[in-house]
Amino acid sequence: MPSRVYLDWNATTPLRPEARAAMVAAFDLIGNPSSVHAEGRQARRLVEEARVTLAAAVGALPRNVIFTSAGTEANALALSPGLRGPSGGPVERLLVSAVEHASVLAGGRFPADKVGHIRVTRAGVVDLDHLRALLKDGPPALVSIMAANNETGALQPVAEAARIVHEAGGLLHIDAIQALGKIPFNINAVGADLATFSAHKIGGPKGIGALVVAEGLAGLEPVLRGGGQELNRRAGTENVAGIAGFGAAVKVALQAFPEDAKRMASLRDRLENGIRAIAGATIFSDDTERLPNTILFTAPGLKAETAVIGFDLEGIAVSSGSACSSGKVQPSHVLSAMGFDPAVAQGAVRLSLGWSTEPDDINRALEAWRKLGNTLLRD
Amino acid sequence: MPSRVYLDWNATTPLRPEARAAMVAAFDLIGNPSSVHAEGRQARRLVEEARVTLAAAVGALPRNVIFTSAGTEANALALSPGLRGPSGGPVERLLVSAVEHASVLAGGRFPADKVGHIRVTRAGVVDLDHLRALLKDGPPALVSIMAANNETGALQPVAEAARIVHEAGGLLHIDAIQALGKIPFNINAVGADLATFSAHKIGGPKGIGALVVAEGLAGLEPVLRGGGQELNRRAGTENVAGIAGFGAAVKVALQAFPEDAKRMASLRDRLENGIRAIAGATIFSDDTERLPNTILFTAPGLKAETAVIGFDLEGIAVSSGSACSSGKVQPSHVLSAMGFDPAVAQGAVRLSLGWSTEPDDINRALEAWRKLGNTLLRD
Repeated sequence: MPSRVYLDWNATTPLRPEARAAMVAAFDLIGNPSSVHAEGRQARRLVEEARVTLAAAVGALPRNVIFTSAGTEANALALSPGLRGPSGGPVERLLVSAVEHASVLAGGRFPADKVGHIRVTRAGVVDLDHLRALLKDGPPALVSIMAANNETGALQPVAEAARIVHEAGGLLHIDAIQALGKIPFNINAVGADLATFSAHKIGGPKGIGALVVAEGLAGLEPVLRGGGQELNRRAGTENVAGIAGFGAAVKVALQAFPEDAKRMASLRDRLENGIRAIAGATIFSDDTERLPNTILFTAPGLKAETAVIGFDLEGIAVSSGSACSSGKVQPSHVLSAMGFDPAVAQGAVRLSLGWSTEPDDINRALEAWRKLGNTLLRD
Repeated sequence: MPSRVYLDWNATTPLRPEARAAMVAAFDLIGNPSSVHAEGRQARRLVEEARVTLAAAVGALPRNVIFTSAGTEANALALSPGLRGPSGGPVERLLVSAVEHASVLAGGRFPADKVGHIRVTRAGVVDLDHLRALLKDGPPALVSIMAANNETGALQPVAEAARIVHEAGGLLHIDAIQALGKIPFNINAVGADLATFSAHKIGGPKGIGALVVAEGLAGLEPVLRGGGQELNRRAGTENVAGIAGFGAAVKVALQAFPEDAKRMASLRDRLENGIRAIAGATIFSDDTERLPNTILFTAPGLKAETAVIGFDLEGIAVSSGSACSSGKVQPSHVLSAMGFDPAVAQGAVRLSLGWSTEPDDINRALEAWRKLGNTLLRD
């Protein structure tokens, strides 16, 4: 039996061998990083090494890296009503783009009536004019925009958004989970006040993420309180092995960049050419800059749920969009925000590539399409 | 060089071989448990198997087990102002015992002026008369009492507390983190409405915990929102390997119970006899039922900080109390609540044993005391 073809890297990636090795090594460390004895200090050292690695990778100071249990928790921590804007006063509302991840759309700890939504274009790109208008129309805001969309791969104009937000006396949070290791990302280069990362999207383990903040950011309110861990910003015994695995994954992902990204882009282009040959196929966001690894497409008559199952039976893992709705195939809020109607959204299939994707994986995906296409496109 | 002696099991335990094996096996599963394809379903299966294991171990239904990133998050989730009491109305305040873990004392999402504290006796046991008085004096309450204290090991009268709380129309949350695997614990036997567990206290990995709720409990408000994971009660991609490790640790810890507990108790008694021989030594909570593995003691002139470092240099890991204050040796809030003055609290050393503690570990700890005692007790 041929091995499986995995084309769902935006949902989660295979563990990189370096991350696995770091975790297995960490399993031998008994100590709680908060303990004073040698066992505790050894565990502490691993945590702090990973912190330095992530900080260096994204242009932050180590003390401004807060490890969390995942991107969702990092986003929840970031969206904190107590944050103080450049003028020293607290932000009084939250503006999020309409294509954010569900954990950002949930609004963190802002009451629902203090959360506004920034429109996106039909290409899935945040409408900066709308952002400007929203900012003008009210008190200082925390704005949350992702660096790259997890469904379409569309890159967002985060650096320009940062300038606009700061001019209006606000703060910018960037969910950079899909960007890390795929496009250059540095919090200073883009001007982010807060940025979110997740290990399992770059070959690290599931269950670990981080919020990184700009030096001097004030007013961040912990989500988890109690112990003094993470400089009083995130209580709870640290996931030492997970953090070590995250650090190792960051190191290798950044070393492999941009070569990995180039290789993914070239394989992605080949796959995309195959898809374009389908009569009436639409590749979403193909008129704007995208991640090097992501294709979201549809074709007349295609039903995502059937397609995912059909491909799966052919040995190929693809997705109907985000994996974050617990097994349910739901119409994508991203495509709705881009102005596509629900019927189109229900026909969207996502193919996402990664560092171990091989040319043969692309061949097999296209072969599967040739086999399945007629059935899948039958009305 | 002789191997180290680890006597800080209440802070965190070495990973059990079975938990390590389960995690390493899980590392081969690529999928996100929310994905529909085979890789996703395999990951989902591991998560659900662990859920069934933990549920069975504590007398719950699998659907009432919510995996979290640790005990701290599980406690934060439990202390939810939206919870509905037996009469159907929401609980309107929180009562916590004065010896709870910092993550419970933090009060979850109750405003500070809605949090009351239940006194403990000099033996460190919750004063049920005070609980009764507090319950009489106000609207329905959520009450949080730990099954066993992490510093003294004192068992708490949780079953009786449950009856009292329910009679008063309230709900009882039990932090059972130190109890699991050391004393019998079943949510139905004690009448808990919510109970918290942590993997790294029973030989599972750090960074995974669970909240278990009674069937029919209504009104629990998620701390992390966005994706629909954990039946909409805890968003975020699941820590698949961590959950698998937790499940494996629960299985072996429960199989090894009560033999492990008996063995620990006998070694603990031997260590305790040695401590009692120290002139003026006090073993806290020794006049009440305790965990089989915990000794908190002091002696005139003893300084915890110096003792921890002195023992560490002799190759023995001990603690000054809780490890949850990030490296800082702070006077214990537990001993303060028991009525001891801060000077006594600063002299308290905790020795906690575990499933791999050997008779020779006890010999070496007592030897170290014979060597260090004169220095450590010098004023």
